[in-house]
Amino acid sequence: MQEEKIERLIEMFRSLPGVGYKTAQRYAYSIIEGSSDRAKNFCEAITDAKNKIGFCKVCGNFTDKEVCPICSKREHKIICVVKEPKDVISMEKVKNYSGVYHVLFGTISPLNNKGPDDIHIRELLARIQKGGVEEVIMATNPDVEGDATAMYIAKILKPLGIKVSRIAQGVAMGSDLEYADEVTLSRALEGRRTI
Amino acid sequence: MQEEKIERLIEMFRSLPGVGYKTAQRYAYSIIEGSSDRAKNFCEAITDAKNKIGFCKVCGNFTDKEVCPICSKREHKIICVVKEPKDVISMEKVKNYSGVYHVLFGTISPLNNKGPDDIHIRELLARIQKGGVEEVIMATNPDVEGDATAMYIAKILKPLGIKVSRIAQGVAMGSDLEYADEVTLSRALEGRRTI
Repeated sequence: MQEEKIERLIEMFRSLPGVGYKTAQRYAYSIIEGSSDRAKNFCEAITDAKNKIGFCKVCGNFTDKEVCPICSKREHKIICVVKEPKDVISMEKVKNYSGVYHVLFGTISPLNNKGPDDIHIRELLARIQKGGVEEVIMATNPDVEGDATAMYIAKILKPLGIKVSRIAQGVAMGSDLEYADEVTLSRALEGRRTI
Repeated sequence: MQEEKIERLIEMFRSLPGVGYKTAQRYAYSIIEGSSDRAKNFCEAITDAKNKIGFCKVCGNFTDKEVCPICSKREHKIICVVKEPKDVISMEKVKNYSGVYHVLFGTISPLNNKGPDDIHIRELLARIQKGGVEEVIMATNPDVEGDATAMYIAKILKPLGIKVSRIAQGVAMGSDLEYADEVTLSRALEGRRTI
């Protein structure tokens, strides 16, 4: 008995990641109850983002230019390799990192039928073969797939004489040893540093 | 360092109820990574729902016609009064209810500065004064505000000779007495029926 036009809007909201029927319904009602201006702005924002945002031809991150602001302004000696665009935002919170990024758009994941050719490893190699790169920091997630991807890329890059590093794994700042899992603790021990 | 156009889309998603920054970012990336068709459909769905959905001039529920399908097809002897349009959807799951609805768009809530004139009580009275209504079922939520609103409306309608009822409160089907709160149990006892 839901109106067809509302149902259609609910279906669109349901297509967003992690949104179920009830949540989508709340979103749809919020649009209908909101102002016309808001609905118009919403549309414009969607169209604008979809049509004008493309990929940086250097690092692959989202941008509305040919080369993203990070790639065009910074030195390309150090490349930090991440899984997704949102990881760039996270890494950028570290104020003293002044290198550039490379977005893989995924990790090697045999279970999900994702091999090395399905993510942007080829593009990373091409960047490095142009020369000038001294270090590649693997900042994929500290999970099985992230680790495997880091290892795979390290294996390819080492013969090229590039230093490949992996972000440190250990206990997170402000956390409690009591709740740390054994793998994390074991990594924290392995990576211990003299003080 | 987030692109301005992405930031704008994230802000739009954040304006939806219960959406924080990270969730909005996920939604925005899902739009950018998705197909152009999807973005187009999304826009159309928003515009369509916002521009073509109005309020039923009888019950106040959302509809794209002057009078909603429920009001135009059913007998108007029994009116079920609910707080919001989504409650109509919930009540409609009860297959054997054949009356109509009245959407209040809120409940009396002094804490939120909402008095009887801020919700659609006047419209309900006007409907009843036209005659033909035998019973009004108060199906506002079983909370303080829902109860107060039900009481307030009952007090107005009783002098008009209308039967006013309230949906039963008690233990929910499939729930466990152990976890029922004392108010619910007290209501369940009060409302006990001979079997």
